[in-house]
Amino acid sequence: MNRYWTLSEQPLGPLPTPDTFNIREAPIPEPAEGQALTRTIYVSLDPYQWGYRRRGVEKPGDVCHARTVGQVCASRLDGFAPGDFVFSTAGWAEFGLVGEGVARPAYMIPRKLDPTQGPISYAVGVLGMLGLTAWSGMVLLGKPQAGQTAVVSAASGGVGQIAGQLARLQGMRVVGIAGREEKCRFVVDELGFDACVSHLAPDFPDQLRAACPEGVDVYFENVGGPVFEATLPLFRPKSRMVICGLIAHYGESGDARAELMRRGAATFAERKMEVRDLFVGDFVADHQDRFLAEMTPLVARGDVKYLEDRRHGFEALPGAFIDMMSGANFGKTLVQINPDQSLGERGASKVAC
Amino acid sequence: MNRYWTLSEQPLGPLPTPDTFNIREAPIPEPAEGQALTRTIYVSLDPYQWGYRRRGVEKPGDVCHARTVGQVCASRLDGFAPGDFVFSTAGWAEFGLVGEGVARPAYMIPRKLDPTQGPISYAVGVLGMLGLTAWSGMVLLGKPQAGQTAVVSAASGGVGQIAGQLARLQGMRVVGIAGREEKCRFVVDELGFDACVSHLAPDFPDQLRAACPEGVDVYFENVGGPVFEATLPLFRPKSRMVICGLIAHYGESGDARAELMRRGAATFAERKMEVRDLFVGDFVADHQDRFLAEMTPLVARGDVKYLEDRRHGFEALPGAFIDMMSGANFGKTLVQINPDQSLGERGASKVAC
Repeated sequence: MNRYWTLSEQPLGPLPTPDTFNIREAPIPEPAEGQALTRTIYVSLDPYQWGYRRRGVEKPGDVCHARTVGQVCASRLDGFAPGDFVFSTAGWAEFGLVGEGVARPAYMIPRKLDPTQGPISYAVGVLGMLGLTAWSGMVLLGKPQAGQTAVVSAASGGVGQIAGQLARLQGMRVVGIAGREEKCRFVVDELGFDACVSHLAPDFPDQLRAACPEGVDVYFENVGGPVFEATLPLFRPKSRMVICGLIAHYGESGDARAELMRRGAATFAERKMEVRDLFVGDFVADHQDRFLAEMTPLVARGDVKYLEDRRHGFEALPGAFIDMMSGANFGKTLVQINPDQSLGERGASKVAC
Repeated sequence: MNRYWTLSEQPLGPLPTPDTFNIREAPIPEPAEGQALTRTIYVSLDPYQWGYRRRGVEKPGDVCHARTVGQVCASRLDGFAPGDFVFSTAGWAEFGLVGEGVARPAYMIPRKLDPTQGPISYAVGVLGMLGLTAWSGMVLLGKPQAGQTAVVSAASGGVGQIAGQLARLQGMRVVGIAGREEKCRFVVDELGFDACVSHLAPDFPDQLRAACPEGVDVYFENVGGPVFEATLPLFRPKSRMVICGLIAHYGESGDARAELMRRGAATFAERKMEVRDLFVGDFVADHQDRFLAEMTPLVARGDVKYLEDRRHGFEALPGAFIDMMSGANFGKTLVQINPDQSLGERGASKVAC
């Protein structure tokens, strides 16, 4: 049988709780002609998944959506052979299908992975859409310039840690915003940010101002709320704001983005700012190849570091997701549910893999 | 809270089932003076644990026993600092104590691990009591001689794979006995055994005889039952039989060892055999240092390979144990329940670790 998590019938509150999710079972699917069956190894947990759930894109009974890394068990799909490692969107499930007729977000395109290019888990991280998000937002939309100042919120999170390092590599002064002190220490000591400020500090706005003596030229926004409010007065003329996510508002019923735009409208206009929404799907077709060609060697050489918050076990999925949504994670959150044979791990499997 | 698995109140059947185990919670213990608190990373699963449970050594309410690798969270014990990796016997539990007054089998002595000497998970495997079991049994009791023939049952299991490779390194002809074909292929192709026979084959005794044309000089016994019966007629004069385990009999109520000795008595006497019980606790005090000094470089050089069957997540423990007892595992069974920081994995933890 194939176990998977689905939304329970309970109305969703502002934040997920253990009652939000149920385990269900169904027979392991048989791949049809043009399809392959994968066993899931890594499940990526990202805040946008809560958006899918809150907005009703995902419904009770559906397999909870997630980007995944898996291994082909059986294949009737050209180019995918048993044993191959693949990026796909099997979700919070032990098994999934890829190929013809398999529903998925249009821009999340299954692809075969080459384990010699980096850990396969990175395909749901720094060498996947997560990294492409950071790269598109910072390099393409942020227009980084040496000597200018970039601010990145949720700085130790999946996207933030990468976006900040890319700005640093462009010669920018980089200031992170994070929660716990250990996250701030990490982005400065390990990732090479110039400074980091905790939004939990009582004098956070003053600390942020002090960390940005010349003002802010690029703001990579993952949070919103008081973090945005503290940054708003610091924007320089012709600065760029890239809105990647607004995790502080995920639990709210209103239109957080519209409210943020209203709050900032006068400043944006007066300072001739560029304010851009970041949607990674816009960049896959034209930029994914260039992104991978640039990022893979940066990661291999250690010029871009990447911290995973890895949990273990299928049953750990809801708890890890809840922790991430409340900031109790540390790094890019993912859950390993099966052995990673590319690392030499073996494990008995329900189907040959 | 500290989650742990314990035996349920149900009478134990011959083999474990999902109803055999319950999860319970208790406060995370506070280390007293002379103690350290560890967070468990790897839980070793070994057939002898079922013996503890069946014989009543372990009772409902007790934390299920297991050898573990963990990381020190807090310490009032000299020589154990927060962050240190340790071998201990925290059992099927998220946290455990080591040090003064902590109950444990006398010969399972907590020790600090050096991650530069090999993966820390190997401390419940090839570089721990599992490896010492194989080494003591084959090298000390088996008295291997070049050109002679060794037979190892449960050849791809935790002890079997190591015992067989040690015999090979002594120049012996090594014949494995395993279940599924993929296990047999593995011990021949990957571990360098000379042959392997499946006990599931209808003509298994004939196949074993054909694989041992000169007879058997050393028999490393992990199984018993029909596997022993097929080996019995092949013993050469002055051959050695080392009884490590009798997994085929774990579910039986009688004295399997006594019955095996009765079945073999005439052969043992007539052929002047040495038949020895292997109890690893007899070898720790006098031989563990020499064992580690010999085995560590063998593993580092790849002269001894080691296959882990690694599952993921605290909730995976009963299923992994059930699989191991029924032969559905493949390699040394262990469960990873927390991130391994020695591998760079990070994870939010309930207590600083």
